[in-house]
Amino acid sequence: VKYNNITFLSDYGLKDEFVGVCKSVIRTIAPEVKIIDLTHEIAPFDIRAGSLTLVRSANYLAPGVVLAMVDPEAGTSRRAIAVELGEGESVLIGPDNGLLAPVTALAGGATRIVQLANADYWLGAPSPSFEGRDMFSPVAAHICNGVDLGEFGPELDAATLVPALVPFSGEKDGILHADAVWIDRYGNVQLNVSPSQIEDFGDDIVVTHGSHSQVAERVRTFAEVDGMQLGMIVDSSGLISLVVNQGSAASRFGIALGDAVTLRPSIPVE
Amino acid sequence: VKYNNITFLSDYGLKDEFVGVCKSVIRTIAPEVKIIDLTHEIAPFDIRAGSLTLVRSANYLAPGVVLAMVDPEAGTSRRAIAVELGEGESVLIGPDNGLLAPVTALAGGATRIVQLANADYWLGAPSPSFEGRDMFSPVAAHICNGVDLGEFGPELDAATLVPALVPFSGEKDGILHADAVWIDRYGNVQLNVSPSQIEDFGDDIVVTHGSHSQVAERVRTFAEVDGMQLGMIVDSSGLISLVVNQGSAASRFGIALGDAVTLRPSIPVE
Amino acid sequence: VKYNNITFLSDYGLKDEFVGVCKSVIRTIAPEVKIIDLTHEIAPFDIRAGSLTLVRSANYLAPGVVLAMVDPEAGTSRRAIAVELGEGESVLIGPDNGLLAPVTALAGGATRIVQLANADYWLGAPSPSFEGRDMFSPVAAHICNGVDLGEFGPELDAATLVPALVPFSGEKDGILHADAVWIDRYGNVQLNVSPSQIEDFGDDIVVTHGSHSQVAERVRTFAEVDGMQLGMIVDSSGLISLVVNQGSAASRFGIALGDAVTLRPSIPVE
Repeated sequence: VKYNNITFLSDYGLKDEFVGVCKSVIRTIAPEVKIIDLTHEIAPFDIRAGSLTLVRSANYLAPGVVLAMVDPEAGTSRRAIAVELGEGESVLIGPDNGLLAPVTALAGGATRIVQLANADYWLGAPSPSFEGRDMFSPVAAHICNGVDLGEFGPELDAATLVPALVPFSGEKDGILHADAVWIDRYGNVQLNVSPSQIEDFGDDIVVTHGSHSQVAERVRTFAEVDGMQLGMIVDSSGLISLVVNQGSAASRFGIALGDAVTLRPSIPVE
Repeated sequence: VKYNNITFLSDYGLKDEFVGVCKSVIRTIAPEVKIIDLTHEIAPFDIRAGSLTLVRSANYLAPGVVLAMVDPEAGTSRRAIAVELGEGESVLIGPDNGLLAPVTALAGGATRIVQLANADYWLGAPSPSFEGRDMFSPVAAHICNGVDLGEFGPELDAATLVPALVPFSGEKDGILHADAVWIDRYGNVQLNVSPSQIEDFGDDIVVTHGSHSQVAERVRTFAEVDGMQLGMIVDSSGLISLVVNQGSAASRFGIALGDAVTLRPSIPVE
Repeated sequence: VKYNNITFLSDYGLKDEFVGVCKSVIRTIAPEVKIIDLTHEIAPFDIRAGSLTLVRSANYLAPGVVLAMVDPEAGTSRRAIAVELGEGESVLIGPDNGLLAPVTALAGGATRIVQLANADYWLGAPSPSFEGRDMFSPVAAHICNGVDLGEFGPELDAATLVPALVPFSGEKDGILHADAVWIDRYGNVQLNVSPSQIEDFGDDIVVTHGSHSQVAERVRTFAEVDGMQLGMIVDSSGLISLVVNQGSAASRFGIALGDAVTLRPSIPVE
C-alpha cells in the first residue's frame, strides 16, 4: 500500500447510493485504505464551490489521494486527470474542469499530471454516466495500491489544463468589491477578502449588499457580537466572514452564495 | 473474522443517532469490521425504494454482510431473516418484508435462509422498537466474527418469504407503460425500462406524463442534451433515464417518484 | 494506542467540510483510530439536544473517546474540558457548557476532569473560530495515542462545571406535565416521561398539547396503532413516545421540539 487515505469530496449527496457504491468499489480493490468524506453536499454541478472547499481544507488533509467529483460533463470529451503534488506526497484525481486547479496552485503547482486514459484500470459499465464509480474510484484504489501514475495514461502539460473560475476581490475609490464565496451551515458569509485588505478600515466597516448598507463591527469571536448586530471576524480559513451571534448572517441580511458585497470604512481613511 | 465488510442501508436518516448507535454496537462486538454506508436516506418506510437501491448497487458491493433496515413493522410478528447468497459469499440481513427479495433474485436465489430467532445473540432492550440496534446489528457483527448462520435460528423455505413489490413496465398497442422508479439527487428520472424495450423506437421518443407529452432525444451523455430539452440516456444501472443538461428533469417536467410515464416512437414503428 | 475509537457528535452538519476536516486532523495524528459518527445534524447551537443524544446513546457506545461539539461560544473564555469516566474506560471532550453534564451524571460522575489549556497539543490557527479542528480534534487524537489527561491542562473540580439544562416532568393534581424532548426523523415524539410515571394511568391516556386533547392508546409496537390514531409506546430509550403507524405523530398533531404536553388518565385514577 503506497497511500493509506482517500479523501473524498463530491456533489453526489447522501440521499442516493452514489457515495456508498464508490466506496464499495474502492474497498473491493484496496481493502485497507481509509476513506475520509470531506463532504458530498457540494451543490449539484457547482465546480467553484467544490474547488473552494478543497482550498479551505488543503492544509488539514491526511496525506494520500484526494478524489474530487463535481463533473457536469461526465462522459464527454472533457479529460479525467491525476495531479501529483509534492513529488508524490499526494495525488488529486478528478475531471479537468477547473475543480482541482485552485488547490494545485495553492500547493505550488503539480509535479506531474497524467490523463486517465488506460481503460485497463476501469470497470466495465453499461453507460458513461457514472465515471465516479467506473473510472475514478478504481483508479483511486489502484493508486493507493502503488500503481505508478504513468500506467494510467499520457503525461499532460499543466498549461493545457482548464483554469479555475474563482472570483477575486478588488479595491476601487476606497471601496472594496468582494463576493460571498461560501455560506456555511450556520449562515456565516465568507468573503474573498483577507485581513490585510481591510487593515486600514478601522473597527466599524460599512457592508453594502444590493441597496442595503449596514455597519459591521470587527470582533474576534461570534459571541462578542451584540444582539442582532452584524459582526466581522477573521474566520477559520483566515478570510473575512460576516457573522451574527448564534444565528445566520446570510438569512438575516438576505445574502446568497455568489452575491456581490462591498466594504468601506465607516470613517473614511485619510 | 469471516467477513470484513458490512454494507449498511436504511431509512434511519442521518439527523438522529440511529445509524451511529448501530455502528457502535457493531464495532463493540466486531472491532475490525469495516462498515460502508450505502445510504441511510431511503424515504421512511419505503421498502420498494430500499429494495431497488440494493439491486442497483449489487454488482459493486464489497463482499461480506449487507445490513438492510427499512422496517415499518419492527417489533411485530414479521420475521427477521438472514439470506445467504453464493454459498456464503455474502449474507443479507433484514426484515422479511420484500426488502431483500429483488436483490436475492438478481443473485440467482439464496443458498440458505435463516430466521433470526435466537435471542442469545441480541442485546437486551427496553422495548421492541429499535431492532436495528438490538437484534440486527449484533447479529451482523457475530456473522462477521464467524458464527454460523444456523446458530441464529431455524432454516426457512424460500417459498415462504414475502415477495417483492417491484413494478414492471409493459407494452400495449405500441405504447410502453412504465414507472418512475428512482429520482436521484440531480433530478434524473429512472424508468423501469431497459434499452432493448425501446430499440425500435428511434432517436426521438414521445414521453407522456399525465396530460403532457414531450419529445425526448436519445443521447449518450447529459452534456449532449440541448438547452432546455428533455434527453433520454442509458444510465449507470443500464436502464433508461430521463435527463436534462445540468438540471432536474423531475422538477422541470413535474415527475414524482412512482408516477406513470408512457413512451412511444415519434415516428410510428412500421 | 490507548483507545481505538472516537465517537463524534456535533452540530456541524454534513453540508460543509467541518466534519471531514476534523477527521483528517485526527487521522493524521492517530492513523489507526476508528471514528464513529454519532450524528452531526444536531440543530445549530442546540446544546440540550446534543446532551440528550449522548444520554440516549451512552449504553451502546464503543469504548474510547467521545468528541462532542455543540459550542456556540467557541473562542470565548468558556472552558474546554476532558471528562474521564470509569477510571479511564472512556473520555469525553467538548466545551464546558452543559453538553457533557447529563451523560457524565448517567455514568455516575467523572473520575477526573481536566481543562484543555496546553496549546502544545493544538494546531496553529488563523482565528479561534474553529476550535473543533484546531484544539479538540488533535487533543482527541493524542488521547487515543496514550497521552495522559494531565498533560492537557489543570485538573478541575466537578462542582465548578456548567450544569445541564434538561427539563424534568412532574405531576400536579393528577396531571403529568411533560416536554417533547426529541422528535426523530419519523416524527415520533419522545417525552421526558418514564413508564413508571404513568403506570396507574391505564391503557387510554389523554394527551393535551395547547388547546387540543387526544386519547392515545398504549401499545407495544408502531404497527399496533389503528389507522390515524395516536399511540403511546415505551421507546428504544425506555421513555414514553407518542407515535402513529407509518407516519409522523409530530406533524399530524402539530407538536414541535420543546413543546409542553400533559398526560392524564382517560378514566380518573381512584
